[in-house]
Amino acid sequence: MSAQGREDEATTEEKVRAAAIQLFASKGFQATGIRDLAMAVKLSTAALYHYMGTKDDLLFAIMRDAMLRLLEAARRAESAVDLPEAKIAALTQVHVLSHALWREPTIVADTEIRSLRDDYHRQIVALRDEYESLWRTPILNGCRDGVFTAHDPRLVRLALIDLCTGVTHWYSPAGPLPLEELVRGYVDMALALLRADRDGPLRTADLQLPDVAHYEDLVREVWRSDPPRHPPST
Amino acid sequence: MSAQGREDEATTEEKVRAAAIQLFASKGFQATGIRDLAMAVKLSTAALYHYMGTKDDLLFAIMRDAMLRLLEAARRAESAVDLPEAKIAALTQVHVLSHALWREPTIVADTEIRSLRDDYHRQIVALRDEYESLWRTPILNGCRDGVFTAHDPRLVRLALIDLCTGVTHWYSPAGPLPLEELVRGYVDMALALLRADRDGPLRTADLQLPDVAHYEDLVREVWRSDPPRHPPST
Repeated sequence: MSAQGREDEATTEEKVRAAAIQLFASKGFQATGIRDLAMAVKLSTAALYHYMGTKDDLLFAIMRDAMLRLLEAARRAESAVDLPEAKIAALTQVHVLSHALWREPTIVADTEIRSLRDDYHRQIVALRDEYESLWRTPILNGCRDGVFTAHDPRLVRLALIDLCTGVTHWYSPAGPLPLEELVRGYVDMALALLRADRDGPLRTADLQLPDVAHYEDLVREVWRSDPPRHPPST
Repeated sequence: MSAQGREDEATTEEKVRAAAIQLFASKGFQATGIRDLAMAVKLSTAALYHYMGTKDDLLFAIMRDAMLRLLEAARRAESAVDLPEAKIAALTQVHVLSHALWREPTIVADTEIRSLRDDYHRQIVALRDEYESLWRTPILNGCRDGVFTAHDPRLVRLALIDLCTGVTHWYSPAGPLPLEELVRGYVDMALALLRADRDGPLRTADLQLPDVAHYEDLVREVWRSDPPRHPPST
């Protein structure tokens, strides 16, 4: 195949992937037929199989890619700071920015675990567990050091991630709330939820973190880069 | 029609409704075909139309019923207490108990607004706005009185409801966490999120509310009663 042929193929794969993300996020995976997808990218269903394998393969590829990007951005942000409250603030920023700016792939990753086949299901749940463990450690360390107070640290971790994921339901870049305000509001709520306190309740401004633009750059870089690889590669 | 005939008809309607709730919650409305539903209740598709009207009508009826029950339980719980922190705690208990115990209809009500036709969409959004206003008032009153501190009261209201809705993703009555612990944990998180404080941070035990069993009885009564009516009836 010529270089031009390979380039066209990559572009078709990307188009199929983009159309699938849009359809899965708006209608749901199970409601999206192969025909819907073929129509969206103007290919025959046979040609579609050539580019994407089965619908299951496509869903897995989309979810794995989204989880790996989220993991990569979260790991870079949390490892750059030390205190538990700073790690939670960094993770909150990455989560909210990823869900606000890459709404559709993150919706698919968050909501379609139920639609995955057994082997794919196991792999995505393992990535989700890896992601949640990035939150678990600073929450437990903060509780141990007395900077956080949680009735039930596991419950607070689950609830905090649900809370941050909620931006996908109602945030719109065209709405009245600037992205920076949104992100600062969520960091403030994360600190509140954990009852973060060092000689008084901690607020966003007390943390002296890099500004929101720093995290926005990091998130944009990770989501725009080539698909990330992961050690236990499939 | 004989009394027995009417009774059978009511029972068939209830069976169709129950099967639809289960299918819409597990597969999603758009992925559920009339044939899936007909198979689930062992009726022909023609007989199904007789009992339910169109699939749109059925979705609307299910969502309206769930929203009215949630509204009824929330209104009774919040009107029985006075302080803003007690109202928020009462609303949190009703929301979490309804979503934990009536997981499937509440999932449909929370996630399928996107699938409603224009006129039905308007009516359900109006009920959702009415429900959210029950939360808005005590949050604003609490902020005004200095018992709550919120960076952005609207953002905190949306996030608090998202947080409480999250139980549908992972709570199971068969799991290790007793329902009472779950509910008390969410009330504690609601108070934390609002930075509730009266001469020190408020915790669940400070509120001297009725116990969780009281709210559980209220929620079970409302969800098991005949369908509630609503003033601007359709």
